[in-house]
Amino acid sequence: MPSTRSSAEGGKRARALGLACGRLTPGPRNAITDVPGVRVGHVTLDENTFQGGAIQTGVTAILPHAGNLYRDKPVAAAEVLNGFGKSVGLMQVEELGALETPILLTNTLSVGTAATALVRHAIAANPDIGRTTATVNPLVMECNDGPLNDIQALAVTEAHAAAALAAALAEQDGAEVAVGSVGAGRGMSCFGFKGGIGTSSRRLKLDGKRHHLGVLVLANFGRPGELRLPDGRRVAPPAKDDAPEKGSVIVIAATDVPLDHRQLRRVIRRAGVGLARVGSFWGHGSGDIALGFTTANRIDHDERADLLPLRMLNERRIDALFEAMADATQEAVLDALAAAMPVVGRDGATRPCLSDLLTSGSTE
Amino acid sequence: MPSTRSSAEGGKRARALGLACGRLTPGPRNAITDVPGVRVGHVTLDENTFQGGAIQTGVTAILPHAGNLYRDKPVAAAEVLNGFGKSVGLMQVEELGALETPILLTNTLSVGTAATALVRHAIAANPDIGRTTATVNPLVMECNDGPLNDIQALAVTEAHAAAALAAALAEQDGAEVAVGSVGAGRGMSCFGFKGGIGTSSRRLKLDGKRHHLGVLVLANFGRPGELRLPDGRRVAPPAKDDAPEKGSVIVIAATDVPLDHRQLRRVIRRAGVGLARVGSFWGHGSGDIALGFTTANRIDHDERADLLPLRMLNERRIDALFEAMADATQEAVLDALAAAMPVVGRDGATRPCLSDLLTSGSTE
Amino acid sequence: MPSTRSSAEGGKRARALGLACGRLTPGPRNAITDVPGVRVGHVTLDENTFQGGAIQTGVTAILPHAGNLYRDKPVAAAEVLNGFGKSVGLMQVEELGALETPILLTNTLSVGTAATALVRHAIAANPDIGRTTATVNPLVMECNDGPLNDIQALAVTEAHAAAALAAALAEQDGAEVAVGSVGAGRGMSCFGFKGGIGTSSRRLKLDGKRHHLGVLVLANFGRPGELRLPDGRRVAPPAKDDAPEKGSVIVIAATDVPLDHRQLRRVIRRAGVGLARVGSFWGHGSGDIALGFTTANRIDHDERADLLPLRMLNERRIDALFEAMADATQEAVLDALAAAMPVVGRDGATRPCLSDLLTSGSTE
Amino acid sequence: MPSTRSSAEGGKRARALGLACGRLTPGPRNAITDVPGVRVGHVTLDENTFQGGAIQTGVTAILPHAGNLYRDKPVAAAEVLNGFGKSVGLMQVEELGALETPILLTNTLSVGTAATALVRHAIAANPDIGRTTATVNPLVMECNDGPLNDIQALAVTEAHAAAALAAALAEQDGAEVAVGSVGAGRGMSCFGFKGGIGTSSRRLKLDGKRHHLGVLVLANFGRPGELRLPDGRRVAPPAKDDAPEKGSVIVIAATDVPLDHRQLRRVIRRAGVGLARVGSFWGHGSGDIALGFTTANRIDHDERADLLPLRMLNERRIDALFEAMADATQEAVLDALAAAMPVVGRDGATRPCLSDLLTSGSTE
Repeated sequence: MPSTRSSAEGGKRARALGLACGRLTPGPRNAITDVPGVRVGHVTLDENTFQGGAIQTGVTAILPHAGNLYRDKPVAAAEVLNGFGKSVGLMQVEELGALETPILLTNTLSVGTAATALVRHAIAANPDIGRTTATVNPLVMECNDGPLNDIQALAVTEAHAAAALAAALAEQDGAEVAVGSVGAGRGMSCFGFKGGIGTSSRRLKLDGKRHHLGVLVLANFGRPGELRLPDGRRVAPPAKDDAPEKGSVIVIAATDVPLDHRQLRRVIRRAGVGLARVGSFWGHGSGDIALGFTTANRIDHDERADLLPLRMLNERRIDALFEAMADATQEAVLDALAAAMPVVGRDGATRPCLSDLLTSGSTE
Repeated sequence: MPSTRSSAEGGKRARALGLACGRLTPGPRNAITDVPGVRVGHVTLDENTFQGGAIQTGVTAILPHAGNLYRDKPVAAAEVLNGFGKSVGLMQVEELGALETPILLTNTLSVGTAATALVRHAIAANPDIGRTTATVNPLVMECNDGPLNDIQALAVTEAHAAAALAAALAEQDGAEVAVGSVGAGRGMSCFGFKGGIGTSSRRLKLDGKRHHLGVLVLANFGRPGELRLPDGRRVAPPAKDDAPEKGSVIVIAATDVPLDHRQLRRVIRRAGVGLARVGSFWGHGSGDIALGFTTANRIDHDERADLLPLRMLNERRIDALFEAMADATQEAVLDALAAAMPVVGRDGATRPCLSDLLTSGSTE
Repeated sequence: MPSTRSSAEGGKRARALGLACGRLTPGPRNAITDVPGVRVGHVTLDENTFQGGAIQTGVTAILPHAGNLYRDKPVAAAEVLNGFGKSVGLMQVEELGALETPILLTNTLSVGTAATALVRHAIAANPDIGRTTATVNPLVMECNDGPLNDIQALAVTEAHAAAALAAALAEQDGAEVAVGSVGAGRGMSCFGFKGGIGTSSRRLKLDGKRHHLGVLVLANFGRPGELRLPDGRRVAPPAKDDAPEKGSVIVIAATDVPLDHRQLRRVIRRAGVGLARVGSFWGHGSGDIALGFTTANRIDHDERADLLPLRMLNERRIDALFEAMADATQEAVLDALAAAMPVVGRDGATRPCLSDLLTSGSTE
Repeated sequence: MPSTRSSAEGGKRARALGLACGRLTPGPRNAITDVPGVRVGHVTLDENTFQGGAIQTGVTAILPHAGNLYRDKPVAAAEVLNGFGKSVGLMQVEELGALETPILLTNTLSVGTAATALVRHAIAANPDIGRTTATVNPLVMECNDGPLNDIQALAVTEAHAAAALAAALAEQDGAEVAVGSVGAGRGMSCFGFKGGIGTSSRRLKLDGKRHHLGVLVLANFGRPGELRLPDGRRVAPPAKDDAPEKGSVIVIAATDVPLDHRQLRRVIRRAGVGLARVGSFWGHGSGDIALGFTTANRIDHDERADLLPLRMLNERRIDALFEAMADATQEAVLDALAAAMPVVGRDGATRPCLSDLLTSGSTE
């Protein structure tokens, strides 16, 4: 049965494997939760029999804050690096520049179910939805875990999605994030290795005050043999096959730097730099999508004033955020690879773990 | 119980009410089905007790052709006029320039369920999905029928969506399209009147051969009092309230003119002209989205050749398609209004019918 | 020789011909200059011999404010309705969400010259450009006045552009705007009539205070016979030819409502509604482009703080701006038509004046 | 005085310095001219006194083919990675999916002059422009060479631009391309080193036939100390200053693979991958723009048929082009760095040459 704690716990973080990226300093957890208020929860579906099981999938929930997101909407933006993907909710984020539900990550074919779960979750807290106020825009992003998971089984239920939301809400502010083969990351593959969830953050000082930008990735992309470590080494899995890049990668960015929608979109676009650095060229079959939000600019759903104060960044300082975004994306992908523990999936399929390879030392 | 035939049948077409638009000639049915291969099916959920019922919603399915769309993908494009909406699948349409499932229309909160139904429908016909080939991109578009329908009930099931697909498939090529308060149009409102499904088409001659462009709309937009008829008359419902435009309108365009993705997007953008002509300024709260496809350029999922022949339009002839798109969109909206029959919905809510008003003759 | 006062003066405004649009109230001048700070200047090249002359063109300058725009940049946005056009500077406006030079309007083939003039103008006031600070992004927009003007002559010089800038700067705040066959509008045609420069504005009350949205158009679009007046009448020039829409229309919007870049882009997109209402379907050959700026949010080029205060609109009030934009665009086009005085141009070509037709009363 | 042959000749190619990128095979020249028909010409303004001179700039012309481009327009696409730039002509390329003039590269403030030169060039060959047919869309792209060149001098004249066009036309099909501190590359800087023009190409086999994708860059971007070589080494100039990235990079891609506009845009977007690999995060102040064209799909300006044949790529093969684009962009930047010869510019400013550093062997 699914659990909100991961069997993958125990995996190493990227830095523990010597895979730090860039020159900026990470936040205290080196995680998306270094941005105050952000919470992450997982539900993992792992049929852990002795010989593995066909269902290896899950749901990961990211809460920009612990309050009512429909009432108190963070400014948000989306950027499509390669749109071979099935995420839902991005159109409205781009039009209105805000999100209004938690973000759910799951496998490609479970997007509809997760969206419905978010709708019910929003209605439960906001009974006026579709009655005296507008409807709600669920935000679900996905990767295809088909190689390890029986994705045709549509094993994720609304209850699983609700449990991931509850797990996130139960977390303390600033908690560690479970990474690796956990939640939506359970069945993911990356550069021929076991992929999954990874995270990283960077510290930024603005007007003398400390801020953070944090990234969480669902890493399921990259051609075997193309992975590149920060020192330039190429790393290939022991038995690489030459299959095309058919996965995807979802990059979620959070920050407490006040940005407007345009600035935020510029920042998250640099996810593409981080992905390029680890060895991707944003392959045709890979849905490479970034979504970002700032907790420092929020829209009150019931606002009565006509004109609202907002803060934005002096654009001449934005290179610091670009660099943080590129570095944290790069490191979050390596973090997913570092933390991923072995999974035996559908038809006994498996993927080698990068941590095993790096510990044994045999790289190109 | 839901039925695939509409209680709304009997409503008039726009032209029968004298609401023809533009100078071009319609196709034989003046419907999206004038484009060979296109089929439309509805499932209508109408709790028809004496005093009406809370569930007034439905599903409308549009098939670009009757074959396996996943294997034989029409070139397609999407255009977001105002992105306050929850449609799913548009991102991949824009990246790959093709669609690969039928298009389902339904109410806003049922999008997830309809998407899941499309996933199962695609897997049933293509067991290699998520196994040895890619996943599938379900295409669902929506409007908010909350004022008449208990949208919180999430009354649409996967079975309803499947039934709409089956109803569409059961249609003959070139069949009439049921319009008005039918399918996804059951609970929709438009300029303070009863809205719903409408359709129209235009004939085009290219290189001496006859082609068509057809439009189907799900019309649920427009401020009471702002409706404008083709002759310039303003028409207001008897008791207009001053509520903001909170609806949406979905415009589906089909053609057998060979266009590439870019040309198709240029054509469907002119949906905005048709909407402006009937009196909309693409209101803030209205998700105004156009999706178009051409049956004359198709992508074979299993194509083995590296280079493929395609045809496109001489761009100097594209004004004919722009005009057809603007005219057919305008007339399809009026068609939805003309055909809509009375619905008594949630809490006894109702909307006047434009046909009653025009027959009685009392316009501004 | 060129003059900064128009030979076209004496033309009527749209309202004087009964062509008011919409239900909102215009500002005191019903002009873009109702937005405090905005100034407009023209240089008109009119070879006024008895039988006309081949050179009928000009330059129109719009100053968002009378200060140093490079140092004090208004938030700005651009929207391309139909990109068959040669405007320069829009890419950077979209990336940075601000403008940094005046806006020049001129004929299509003089864009390069006008851009160079703006570069010199900016360097003169900011000697650090290209030395110790960045370069500068000139903003020039255009229409093709070829039918009336000898556009191949490239008659506009840098001196003409500089004179238009000087003429604008010499204006008082809140001055009337010369409209019709003046400045860049000198040689323009519109729906088979004489076109040119038109303007209109709308008043908006937000948080109890008065604001304005003003529009200025360079109108050079529309198929003869397709012009539609606010009451629904079609108006055709006496001898209409069936030439395709090959012109363009530039729509400049100014406001003192504080908007962020995303909101501003949403607002100016509604230029398309105004154009549709007057009878255009945004024809293939017409470069239909909108550019907007707000004087209420500005970026200090030399800002030293990292984080900046900004104000934005409560998005639930944005429909008022959408409506103002649609109405003011529609009326500004009619204003250009109303004010345009006869021009005899290249090879004796001429266009009838709408005001003559409306005064004589012969409409369809 | 300016010359069409570069004083920079004699610089090494990237491969000669061991800087090959990727696993694909280059074309015979490893240059954009490996695509049949493509020609490149330079005019270099180099005030070569003993102690250098303030004018160090130029113009580079790229001809997609040697014929009349206005009559025979290659399918083209543009992609803006970071829009802090002043290129002209991209809007129409995106709307119509084709280019109709040669591409000129020059310094930022000379864009207007170069655009006017292209207009005159087009009129000379097509006297119907602005008379009986449409106007023309000049295509000029730029970087800011201010640190080495007196950019305020606006030293580039229309005659220089015309000479660059003539130089390109005088080249043989398949000729070598002069690279380094030549043409528009004369005054450019890159990662603290001397930058300029670089090129590279990759061979592709489709349906058994040989095709090429070639790239030419104008490289003027990158923070000193951030340059990364293909083997992962970081390379810093001897005395690096910590100035922000204020340059730009223009990436021109040519191919004889038949692509439609959408496919071409997907391909050239991967320029961003190549730029990321060499160490850029697409800095705020850098106008990073890609423009691509295919010689295998062309639009006849005077086409009389309504429907046209076209070929496109089987999208499942597009990863080969993505990889070629990423690799060739990366190598073209390194090629510019490898080939750049010393320039002593404005106020004696200079930049170290990467080739000197690599030959002396002192890298990090």
